[in-house]
Amino acid sequence: MRNIKLTIEYDGGAFCGWQRQPDERTVQAEIEDSLRSLTGEAIDIIGSGRTDSGVHSRGQVANFKTRSSIPANRFKYALNSKLPRDISIRESVEVADSFHSRFDATSKSYRYIIYNGETRSSLYRNHTYHVAYKLDYDLMVRESKSFEGEHDFIGFMSSNSGIDSTIRTIYSIDMKRSGELIYIDIEGNGFLYNMVRIIVGTLVDIGRGRITESVSDILESKKRERAGHTAAAEGLYLEWVKYSL
Amino acid sequence: MRNIKLTIEYDGGAFCGWQRQPDERTVQAEIEDSLRSLTGEAIDIIGSGRTDSGVHSRGQVANFKTRSSIPANRFKYALNSKLPRDISIRESVEVADSFHSRFDATSKSYRYIIYNGETRSSLYRNHTYHVAYKLDYDLMVRESKSFEGEHDFIGFMSSNSGIDSTIRTIYSIDMKRSGELIYIDIEGNGFLYNMVRIIVGTLVDIGRGRITESVSDILESKKRERAGHTAAAEGLYLEWVKYSL
Repeated sequence: MRNIKLTIEYDGGAFCGWQRQPDERTVQAEIEDSLRSLTGEAIDIIGSGRTDSGVHSRGQVANFKTRSSIPANRFKYALNSKLPRDISIRESVEVADSFHSRFDATSKSYRYIIYNGETRSSLYRNHTYHVAYKLDYDLMVRESKSFEGEHDFIGFMSSNSGIDSTIRTIYSIDMKRSGELIYIDIEGNGFLYNMVRIIVGTLVDIGRGRITESVSDILESKKRERAGHTAAAEGLYLEWVKYSL
Repeated sequence: MRNIKLTIEYDGGAFCGWQRQPDERTVQAEIEDSLRSLTGEAIDIIGSGRTDSGVHSRGQVANFKTRSSIPANRFKYALNSKLPRDISIRESVEVADSFHSRFDATSKSYRYIIYNGETRSSLYRNHTYHVAYKLDYDLMVRESKSFEGEHDFIGFMSSNSGIDSTIRTIYSIDMKRSGELIYIDIEGNGFLYNMVRIIVGTLVDIGRGRITESVSDILESKKRERAGHTAAAEGLYLEWVKYSL
């Protein structure tokens, strides 16, 4: 059996997220179905993690085992010719048998895009989060820096689904603005459920003056209700997943 | 009767272009239908020009006459609440009775976006033109400059639809590159049918070595067959229309 690693881009708008679910259109199911028709094997792919309904990816990673003799780099072309247009494979390479997309991930980066315009935008509608309020951008940038480092993010997750630890490290959070768009890039060693979207929602609530507490105080409180709202899925992109190879 | 000017953004992917046509979904028809339901009047809107099926806009301009008492700037909000999500009104203002979106336009700017990546992209699929060939970007930039100035663009239009003159002036053509994306911004006093898309197609054909003639020679020949292909509609954006007010 060979172990193949895929780097996957998708437009999340028409998917019920990454993970296969009965009677739902998901990215994992589309790729597994295409692999089945390509190889004749019933292949299970292992993703680096789930993404929610509506969330996009430029660099989701998944791996799978196969007996097929298709050269590793040909999977990219073969899958791209079979997959629907809202999924594309950026890379396919053979990796060590022990490689595991989820367990071996050492860091991930997400990008979040806010469209901060007064009126709704037809062009940005599926790929940004529309915030019509005036935002104090400089305050958001200053406060964002308090997320960097190791913290207990228990107040920045949507539900406690029996995970061992809610301690995560954010290596960097960088913001930039271009016209009506605000980009927030967050790199960390791991993310809790909805953590990026709650971080962004908190920064937006701070930027519009709805939250007056500092990020440091909110983090310290460990209380979900002190943090902000969960920003919309359509502004979120999984950018890349890193492995210590 | 008041004269109202609209600035209109749209995602062209699901439209059969700007102009109203029987049994087709068009931008003009959507806006006219919304205005009718808003004002009770059978309103005809005048666009600055047509855009083709699949072409996008950030700054199409149209005007219409109305007896309604709705304040001019409220049309923006009222229309945005009625229009489908792939059309949005950026501005609505009252203008002089004599203002005419098409006749009074003094210049227009288009942006064209090429996605120059080896594999197809799910995220860019509806909003860029995918060119997988390696492109000599520097050569394209140099050759693009020959389009600037006043020329007979008869070789750069799709069909001669009985227009008086095929002489147009391009004020500027600017290219920039960001990762796998190439942006081409073209400003001119007017454009023939498919002129921007044939200019871009010619630059792409030059960039990949399929055309070895210079742009100057092609322009001088005045022959459609010497110019390049018509680049795809989905990469084209009408950016703005200017008026000498």
